[in-house]
Amino acid sequence: MNRFGHIFTFTSFGESHGPAIGGIVDGIPANISLSKEDIQPALDLRRPGINSLTTQRNEPDQIEIFSGIFEGKTTGTPLGFIIKNTNHLSTDYDDIKDKFRPAHADLTYELKYGIRDYRGGGRSSARETAVRVACGAIAKKTLNSLLPKSVSISSKVIQIGTETDPTKFKELIEKTKQRNDSIGCLVELQASNVPPCLGSPIYDKLDADIAKEMMGINAVKGVEIGEGFNVVNLYGSENADEMFSDDGENIRFKSNHAGGILGGISTGQDIIVRIAVKPTPSINQILSTVDKDKKNVSITTKGRHDPCIGLRICPVVEAMMWCILLDHYLMNKSFQ
Amino acid sequence: MNRFGHIFTFTSFGESHGPAIGGIVDGIPANISLSKEDIQPALDLRRPGINSLTTQRNEPDQIEIFSGIFEGKTTGTPLGFIIKNTNHLSTDYDDIKDKFRPAHADLTYELKYGIRDYRGGGRSSARETAVRVACGAIAKKTLNSLLPKSVSISSKVIQIGTETDPTKFKELIEKTKQRNDSIGCLVELQASNVPPCLGSPIYDKLDADIAKEMMGINAVKGVEIGEGFNVVNLYGSENADEMFSDDGENIRFKSNHAGGILGGISTGQDIIVRIAVKPTPSINQILSTVDKDKKNVSITTKGRHDPCIGLRICPVVEAMMWCILLDHYLMNKSFQ
Amino acid sequence: MNRFGHIFTFTSFGESHGPAIGGIVDGIPANISLSKEDIQPALDLRRPGINSLTTQRNEPDQIEIFSGIFEGKTTGTPLGFIIKNTNHLSTDYDDIKDKFRPAHADLTYELKYGIRDYRGGGRSSARETAVRVACGAIAKKTLNSLLPKSVSISSKVIQIGTETDPTKFKELIEKTKQRNDSIGCLVELQASNVPPCLGSPIYDKLDADIAKEMMGINAVKGVEIGEGFNVVNLYGSENADEMFSDDGENIRFKSNHAGGILGGISTGQDIIVRIAVKPTPSINQILSTVDKDKKNVSITTKGRHDPCIGLRICPVVEAMMWCILLDHYLMNKSFQ
Amino acid sequence: MNRFGHIFTFTSFGESHGPAIGGIVDGIPANISLSKEDIQPALDLRRPGINSLTTQRNEPDQIEIFSGIFEGKTTGTPLGFIIKNTNHLSTDYDDIKDKFRPAHADLTYELKYGIRDYRGGGRSSARETAVRVACGAIAKKTLNSLLPKSVSISSKVIQIGTETDPTKFKELIEKTKQRNDSIGCLVELQASNVPPCLGSPIYDKLDADIAKEMMGINAVKGVEIGEGFNVVNLYGSENADEMFSDDGENIRFKSNHAGGILGGISTGQDIIVRIAVKPTPSINQILSTVDKDKKNVSITTKGRHDPCIGLRICPVVEAMMWCILLDHYLMNKSFQ
Repeated sequence: MNRFGHIFTFTSFGESHGPAIGGIVDGIPANISLSKEDIQPALDLRRPGINSLTTQRNEPDQIEIFSGIFEGKTTGTPLGFIIKNTNHLSTDYDDIKDKFRPAHADLTYELKYGIRDYRGGGRSSARETAVRVACGAIAKKTLNSLLPKSVSISSKVIQIGTETDPTKFKELIEKTKQRNDSIGCLVELQASNVPPCLGSPIYDKLDADIAKEMMGINAVKGVEIGEGFNVVNLYGSENADEMFSDDGENIRFKSNHAGGILGGISTGQDIIVRIAVKPTPSINQILSTVDKDKKNVSITTKGRHDPCIGLRICPVVEAMMWCILLDHYLMNKSFQ
Repeated sequence: MNRFGHIFTFTSFGESHGPAIGGIVDGIPANISLSKEDIQPALDLRRPGINSLTTQRNEPDQIEIFSGIFEGKTTGTPLGFIIKNTNHLSTDYDDIKDKFRPAHADLTYELKYGIRDYRGGGRSSARETAVRVACGAIAKKTLNSLLPKSVSISSKVIQIGTETDPTKFKELIEKTKQRNDSIGCLVELQASNVPPCLGSPIYDKLDADIAKEMMGINAVKGVEIGEGFNVVNLYGSENADEMFSDDGENIRFKSNHAGGILGGISTGQDIIVRIAVKPTPSINQILSTVDKDKKNVSITTKGRHDPCIGLRICPVVEAMMWCILLDHYLMNKSFQ
Repeated sequence: MNRFGHIFTFTSFGESHGPAIGGIVDGIPANISLSKEDIQPALDLRRPGINSLTTQRNEPDQIEIFSGIFEGKTTGTPLGFIIKNTNHLSTDYDDIKDKFRPAHADLTYELKYGIRDYRGGGRSSARETAVRVACGAIAKKTLNSLLPKSVSISSKVIQIGTETDPTKFKELIEKTKQRNDSIGCLVELQASNVPPCLGSPIYDKLDADIAKEMMGINAVKGVEIGEGFNVVNLYGSENADEMFSDDGENIRFKSNHAGGILGGISTGQDIIVRIAVKPTPSINQILSTVDKDKKNVSITTKGRHDPCIGLRICPVVEAMMWCILLDHYLMNKSFQ
Repeated sequence: MNRFGHIFTFTSFGESHGPAIGGIVDGIPANISLSKEDIQPALDLRRPGINSLTTQRNEPDQIEIFSGIFEGKTTGTPLGFIIKNTNHLSTDYDDIKDKFRPAHADLTYELKYGIRDYRGGGRSSARETAVRVACGAIAKKTLNSLLPKSVSISSKVIQIGTETDPTKFKELIEKTKQRNDSIGCLVELQASNVPPCLGSPIYDKLDADIAKEMMGINAVKGVEIGEGFNVVNLYGSENADEMFSDDGENIRFKSNHAGGILGGISTGQDIIVRIAVKPTPSINQILSTVDKDKKNVSITTKGRHDPCIGLRICPVVEAMMWCILLDHYLMNKSFQ
């Protein structure tokens, strides 16, 4: 329910406006050099308030680690940590505590649980992604400590609205913000030097787990791998990644339509993933909705919100990918 | 690894050219009327050889049930079943046993396991999807027996290549087949009357599980929900599904950009999913590849294959959706 | 629910009087030599009717394997199998279908599921243990193929009633049978050459998993490891297993009070487990009970039953131990 | 690995001498009244230093809750908490950091992980049981909020050494302590008003899960249910729990040899469990052992330790039982 993974796992807790969020990371192999300094920089990249285009909630996001590390090395025991919530202004939300914001999880949490911490979206807030980022940093350090050749993962926003020219993104976001609106975006992630053989067919395929974890990130509405939705337009003869060998030792591919995964198992080629991110639902405009008493009302979300989630989702997307790759790497070790 | 689900689960086994495929379905509530007759029709819809456009492998696909049903009703114990493989021509594959077919799982299975049943793709063959279809039929009967109002699920191919007019699909496939090629397609699935409250945030969200299971189906390279990748192009004001109530009792939505899921939990609106299906990699054309000795060779896949997977994937997509909904329905019951 | 294990797993299905029982074994590493011949002898040891002291139900218990093996070796894919039920006489049970046999699961299955296959105890019958034995044989072959030094597991009945002299067991059982009664027994299992480091603290300790799986075997009411219940009587100074080294390389123990497990992790010493097995509840005597209508009735279980389960439980106990050790061995590999 | 449960789960972290221990409890239904005050009293019962017979480590053991509760009620989201370690004297352990204490987990942690936090036993310390006690208090409040009739669970030490007269326990422990020794004990737990139908055969039987979780508690070497090991001595006719009905509505039993569980499912009778607890291995006596360099050395464990674990294990045993019963109760709800 609130747990990621099979062998390398983390469980997260925390609401947007509670005293702290945090998690427990389990399944870290022992004897990995690991400290706060491996994690804090990743949190700093994700944290709000880093520039004028993101939410103005300013959180220091300092991680406190309670266990799992001894004299600078992991011990094979679970790593418990928290990140305190310090800059929440809960009064911002008082006028909407009984109304369901459109495109938000307010309604579904209310229906499912009959109670919700409405402050800042409670559990459904993107604030929880700080936990993912911390876990991703742990996974990154761990995986690359175990591999002879480091995996590298990068991601970027490649489209905002209909704009694909990155030099025009800033202007588009500012305009959108001025109009009290928000806008969607497309993110592309690339993982290089991924070892082959990761992925456990048939019901824990690597691509299936990537799809699950990416779709599970707040605001994501679509996931594609390699050619993705473009495969619809292709003939089999166009989509085949032909193979050859230069040296009689290494197998190479002429193309990478597959995006690095065949039959649910990594090939060693770059893994290419694209995800579609919806516009922030919190906009300073008057929308129609209902309240707890099923009365028709109007609502305006003031708060402090990102006009485009793309500016802050990249560290989260990368973090989930690190976690997935480490998890599958450890799973695969059982059978090698 | 080879298991679907959390509470309603199934485990599958079987290779394309072994004596049988099959599975064990666990977590079926007791006292559901269930028999072979609830399952066989679904298998008949999926089975190969049903028309001139699909693979000519002709399998009767008769399910044999060994347990879990007593006097026409489920007993709460696991249901074990097999479907025999009868029409396999293993000799078809003898010339390719040492070569890796492009865009197939041949290479990755060989790398990961160091051995593979190359006959008909072995475990990675779409033949395994017959097990999914059987399990889906069980899930459908079970879920609708438990609900006051039946869920309905339908799916259809909405695009093949660049063609979106269904009346032109048959001709396009025939042409593609004549050219010894295959072609991709886009499938849309709709689930109606889905109960609200299904989905377990944050790491077992309903949309995350849908993404996982759809991406895990052979040949799928992309999954989107609701507006899906189109959210990239939208403003927040356009993507909001405003709510209202006609009668002060029921909450209704003015639109369904979300595709029936908010915060990972079903809203009660229709769930809309689209998946991108790649062209069958098995084509009767000469392609470059390598063999086990890393020698450069050419390969032609003869066998009997579907020129467009869309003709046979719909029952599989629907089956997985039935299984997901039942699984989440039972999970949700624990907390109601 | 009906699944054993974490990484090496099996799921079982089947009722005593259905057409077949069986299972799916998942998580077998690839390239292990394995065939029916590795499994059938273990089934032959467990099967009923092997001598005059056991139940007279005579089952050939032939295993049929459907998948997971190719050209004599495992492929890393799940192994599906069935064992047909051939010698069931369901009419034996017609007079008790509405009554709950004391000390049997009849009542609890009826309460929980509202329906039960009463024939031969249905799912709760010891017949299901044939599946465990088959899986244990697979685990044994697999584990010993992976280890440089073979693990050996043996078990024996060390007490029946108050009798601890094995030469008197046969006579005691025959007497018990003549009196239409049954009798309890104590079984001791020893596993030698177990690799150290198996066990995943804190909630998947090796001893915890042993306790779970042994207690889960039909008729078991107690499990102890090493000194077991005798630790109650000991001082810390008596219970300490002091260590030393002869050669400055290997660590040896002066005693094995711990039974081979410390802190939930194997030490490399012999693992010693004892289990308490209750007398078969099926006895040909008149007992008081109730029927489905809550009427007070008397009941006599005719059927064909073992007067002492100890004669047939040893292969089951050993099988579970093989499965546990392989499962933990594979889990441990992830972190080495 | 560090997680308890199926539906109601908790994950624990923490070492004896780190800054804090803690956990995340997941699967608590929403709308349960819950606060620190429901948990702290249970921790107070378990905490060290409560009388002259227990370890003199004096920990306030104050729980800090970070999430999962809003305005005094659970929200259905995970509850994260920590308990700070304040009174650790790590210098106590400096002289034993390279030696393996007999009957402790020092050796196995070193072998498995190649590194260990030797201070106070690190992760293997009984300090972790404070987390279990906190989770048990949450489970107790939750379960009894959901049931019309409260479950009650009690436990007591019924034997220490060979002594079964409780009035003589204090004297025996004091004598043992004076001799710088420790002593084993037998604990009996009783759960009353347990709903019938709990337990998921065949591989998650209620008794199997009880055996697992009890054996997983530090120092436990044996678990038995109902008659337990005494079944060995019984005839089937003696062990049968005959049934009757007074009123044609309720089924009653003439005896409870089964200890409240039949076929792995609760009957509604009292669940009776006994566990064997070994003497604390930490004794102030000179023992032989080896160090990291495999040299033969002698060791004396000074520290502050309980001469008999029985004085402090009862709250832990009860806590695990609350967690098991809630977990199985929620699981069973899925199928009712």
